[in-house]
Parts: sequence; structure tokens; C-alpha cells
Amino acid sequence: MIIQKSTSPRISSFDPENFSFGDTFIDHMFICEYDNEKWGEPRIVPYGPIGFSPAMMGVNYGQACFEGMKAYKDENDDVFLFRPEKNAKRINKSASRLAMPEVPEEIFMKGLQTLIDLDRDWIPKGEGMSLYIRPVIFATEEVLKARISNKYMFAIVATPAKSYYSAPVSVKISDHYSRAANGGVGSAKAAGNYAASFYPTKLANDEGFDQVIWTDDTAHEYFEESGTMNVFVRINDTIYTPKTSEKILDGVTRDSFLKLADKKGIKVIVGDVKVKDVVEAFDNGTLKEVWGVGTAVVTSVFKALGYQDRLLNLPILSETESFALSLKKDLTDIQTNKAEDTFGWRMKVEKNILEEA
Amino acid sequence: MIIQKSTSPRISSFDPENFSFGDTFIDHMFICEYDNEKWGEPRIVPYGPIGFSPAMMGVNYGQACFEGMKAYKDENDDVFLFRPEKNAKRINKSASRLAMPEVPEEIFMKGLQTLIDLDRDWIPKGEGMSLYIRPVIFATEEVLKARISNKYMFAIVATPAKSYYSAPVSVKISDHYSRAANGGVGSAKAAGNYAASFYPTKLANDEGFDQVIWTDDTAHEYFEESGTMNVFVRINDTIYTPKTSEKILDGVTRDSFLKLADKKGIKVIVGDVKVKDVVEAFDNGTLKEVWGVGTAVVTSVFKALGYQDRLLNLPILSETESFALSLKKDLTDIQTNKAEDTFGWRMKVEKNILEEA
Repeated sequence: MIIQKSTSPRISSFDPENFSFGDTFIDHMFICEYDNEKWGEPRIVPYGPIGFSPAMMGVNYGQACFEGMKAYKDENDDVFLFRPEKNAKRINKSASRLAMPEVPEEIFMKGLQTLIDLDRDWIPKGEGMSLYIRPVIFATEEVLKARISNKYMFAIVATPAKSYYSAPVSVKISDHYSRAANGGVGSAKAAGNYAASFYPTKLANDEGFDQVIWTDDTAHEYFEESGTMNVFVRINDTIYTPKTSEKILDGVTRDSFLKLADKKGIKVIVGDVKVKDVVEAFDNGTLKEVWGVGTAVVTSVFKALGYQDRLLNLPILSETESFALSLKKDLTDIQTNKAEDTFGWRMKVEKNILEEA
Repeated sequence: MIIQKSTSPRISSFDPENFSFGDTFIDHMFICEYDNEKWGEPRIVPYGPIGFSPAMMGVNYGQACFEGMKAYKDENDDVFLFRPEKNAKRINKSASRLAMPEVPEEIFMKGLQTLIDLDRDWIPKGEGMSLYIRPVIFATEEVLKARISNKYMFAIVATPAKSYYSAPVSVKISDHYSRAANGGVGSAKAAGNYAASFYPTKLANDEGFDQVIWTDDTAHEYFEESGTMNVFVRINDTIYTPKTSEKILDGVTRDSFLKLADKKGIKVIVGDVKVKDVVEAFDNGTLKEVWGVGTAVVTSVFKALGYQDRLLNLPILSETESFALSLKKDLTDIQTNKAEDTFGWRMKVEKNILEEA
């Protein structure tokens, strides 16, 4: 691995009490380029621009997929990743569906760990704080032909993060727009899936909703995802969530919630979640909670569901009553090394990886 | 408009008899940037790289759409665009669906004409030759948040072109993968649509097919598009093509073929094209032709359709018998100023636009 350290690091001017999420970048980034049917020498370089012309295929034909993951700092300033091997596997699943080359897991994991170790001072500490990490693969060949690119870049960039979304949100159950086609790319973290969701989300925002619950594109009868998250429904004391499929992302937080719920002895049914059943449960008073789960916000609690002309106002549950909030606490306690990690989910980022390398 | 002419133009080393399509770029490109809710000063600059970090939203979230169009040089070296106002309108339709700002038609048309005029020497002349032009809008803000970008670039780049695809091709009628969801972005020239199609196309290639005929994602009962083209079917002497919808691109070549067919007195039915009806027509000998139409290749004639386990070999028609080929000739004769333009489709690119500006 080639390391080019920043000669003008910005870390001394970083205020962990006061920063802007998403556009404050750590001093370095990891990059590795693919050409001639193989990945080249991995590099860590100062974060910053790389030259691409507007003919870049990643931009023209959307061959691009990414991951979202976090690093957490505990009380002793030790740094932990959370199930990073899941992200390494999933980015390759996404890449395959988009006819892009897979990134060897060793390049992914070593690049990730070396970068996070090098810029560990950027990780803010305390309640809800973390480093949000974005691995991304995109086509870099500059050719105006709608075909598979021959050149790619795998990059990892990162930004300090506070947990966003604090207040419960209102979500609209989609009855026209959809996120994924049968035989499409819904299960991939494909760049194009996000762009496609922005306009319907904006329309929902204009109606007073914060997000959209995506339903099947055929008849809008089944829950699929919510915003950029997997969706959970609690009826009485049973949790329901759609099974993963070619339309539904296999979320790391989703999987972790399922395992934590099981450990707690909460009954979980993974399968079709019918809009009709959710509305019926609301009407007969058995619908207790609906929430989204994802890396960025861990849990987004829903206060209301918009369904056709109705607004279904959900009960407000305390942290002890709420499965969403108690599972969130279980998860974040493991992530931040406040609780025992019986699942083996944490991965400590060793210090001075560079010097050993 | 700011013009920065290339100080090291490559045109003197361009051989119009021997060049590579798609990655040979003309000396200049047009760019215009959007920020603070407005488009800035349009610029023509030397073709080349622009600095973007891997956090660029166009790459991460796929907010990117494009157009494909051509300029043709006639015997007198006059240069013509073909229905460019259709592309100006459509790129904005695509942009809107992806929650991106529209480009004012004046910026689009003036940028296009000035660029093509400036680099008119790059347009190769003769049978099938043209300049392929790629207007593209993409999100340029560098933020790791899955939301609508606040910054964009509108660019026009171009490459000399020969008509590609000469031989008739075999296409597979899709029975699993799909291109577009109901309530999705199929009617937009969204970057992500192309990436999503590459893997299914590769699988079809592995089975010996050149392209895929996309069918509806619900039950694969209806033709939608073929490859990156609109699809036409001829049964006896009637042409059938799917009507445009939120899943089907409103192609300029498609629209031109419909108008030319009408002028020729050919009966055209625009509506549902059922896979079952096409297969039945093959079986009873009334299926004469199936072909794709699009800007890049104008017409791609199909020699065989793969349907489930069957291979339907289509008749080989002469240029006079074939509707596909005779309509193609009608169209290219208008595009290249060999025939009278009764529709008012050609737009001449005036000389020395720069000096007048």
C-alpha cells in the first residue's frame, strides 16, 4: 500500500463539538484503481479532487455502488468497526449486479482499517457520535458507449457524524411511485436507486411527510423499504419485516435487529408485510410501532403513516415500552463497547497499522 | 458565454478514415455549473478532466441523466443537427424525474450550436458518418447525505461516429430481468437505468444473444424496449410499437419513424405489444420484422428472437422489402440533407457563431 500523508492536515481546526455532518471530510482517503482486468496498488492519499471528464462512465451510465458504515470510539479512545465484513461482502454483491468487478476482501478490509487508524483523531466521542464511512466503487473509463466500463475506482472517504433524525417522523405509504422493479437492482446499493427515490420523496415532503414507505410496484400491496432503510412493524408484541429479495436490501442493521430481538425473546416474523394488515392492525388497536433501521440513523421511529387519504397516528411509546428504542440501545451499546459483544460483531481498529505494514 | 480555446488542439492528428468511436473527443466541451439555485456563466473550454472527489453526489446517488444526439455534415460541408429541441426538452424531463434542476433551453441550444460550430472540422463526412453528441447533467456537490444535491454540472462532450452495428442481431426476450418499474424512472434517460441493464445483457450475451428485449417486470407479457432502443414489430404490413409511458423512453428516432411511416402510408398501431402475439405471428408466418431504433444506430435489425427455449429466426428482407431499412434510409437522407425536409427537422449550425456572440 502506498501512503501519501497530507502535508496540510485539517485535523487541528476540527471541532468535535461543532461540525457539519456529511461535508466535513477526514484528512485522507483510500483509493484503488481497476484497469486491464485487475486491481492496482492500493493508496492512501490526502482527501481531495481527482480529475474526471464529463464523459466518465460512472456518471453517464450509473455504474456505481456504495456502502455506509461507521466507526465508534469508546471511553478509552479505542476505535471499533461494526460487522465490516458484511459491508465488504455486500459491496461486491452490488458490484456484481451492476456488472462491475468485485473488490478483494483483503483490499477492502486493509484499506478501511489503515485509513481509520491513520485518521482516528477525527472520530468524535460520546453519545451518538461516530465516523461515517463511505466505500464506493464507480466506473472511471471515459467513453461514450453504453457498455460495461473497463476501468473503475474503489474509494473510501469518511465524515464525522452525529446521529441525525432525533424526532419521530411521518411517512407516506407509496401508492404510485416505487423503488425497485422485479428483476431490477433494488437489492443492490446502486447509486441510481437513490436518485430515483428523491423526486417521490420530495412529493411526500410537500404533503407534509418526512419519508416514503416503498411498496411493490405491481399493486402497492406490500411494504418493501422505508426511505433508505429497512422497515419493521410491531403488531401486539410480534415484529414483522419483509424478507430480503432482489428488491430489498440485506441491511446490516436489519440483520442485527433480528438477532437482538431473538436474543431478547421477541417473536419476529420475516415475510410478506401487507399494507392491508398494517392498516387493519391500526384500526383494531394492535399496531404498536413502525420504524426504519439503517446504518446512518440506526432507528427512525415513525409517529404517523400516511395511507391514501388517511393519517394513521401511532402511539407514543416510552423507551422501555418501545421495541424500536430498546433494540436500538442494545445495538448502540455493542457498537460503542458499552455492552458485551456476545455476537462477535465489533472489530477493533489496531493502532499504528501503518508502521506494521 | 466564456470561451477558452484549446492551446494544443488535436484536430490536425485526427484521421476521419481511421478513428475509434466513443473515446476520441473533439477539442472542446461545453460546461455550465448550477449553484445557489441558479445556472452560472456558460463556458466552452478544452476537453479534459475536472476535479471531483469520490464523495461527488452524481457518483454516489446517481443523480445524472443524459442525451444522445448527432450532427451531420452534408456534401457542401454544411452541418446539421436533427430535432435538437426534442433533446433539450427530454433532458429536462429526465432531470425533473431525478429531482435535478432543468437547463434553460437557451443555454442548451446556444451551448450546443457554439460548440459544434467551433469544432465542426471534427465531423466526419460520408455514408453513416456523424458527430455523436452527449449532453449530460450530473450532481457535483460533495456530501455524504442521501438527499437532493445543491450543485450540478451541465456538460456537452462529443465524439466522431461511424454507424455501429452493421449486421442483424439476435435478441433475447427477457423473462426475468427488467429495465423499469411501474412508478420508476424508465422514461428518463437516467444514468442508473443503463448500469442496471448491463448484467442482464451480459447474461444474454453468454447465451449467444446480442441484446435483450425488455418486458414488463410484473409478468413479462409486454414488450417495452430493446437494449437501449425503442422496439418496432411488423406483422404483415402493420407496424406495432409500445406507447410511451413512465416506463418507456420517448425516443426521437421512434417519433421520427412513426411520422415517416405515416407519410409512407404504412399502418402503425401504437399500443400494447404482447409477447404472445409476436410469437403467434411468428408461428403463423405473419411476423415479418422486428427492430430497434435509437440515435446511435438509427436501426438495429433483428435476425432472431430468443423466447424461453425457442429461437425464432426472422425472415431476411431486402432493403426494398424491409420497412426497417426503408424507413432508416428516409430518416438518414433527411438527417444528412440528401432529401427534402418536409417536417422541418434539420437545424443548420451556422458558421462563426462565436464571432457574432
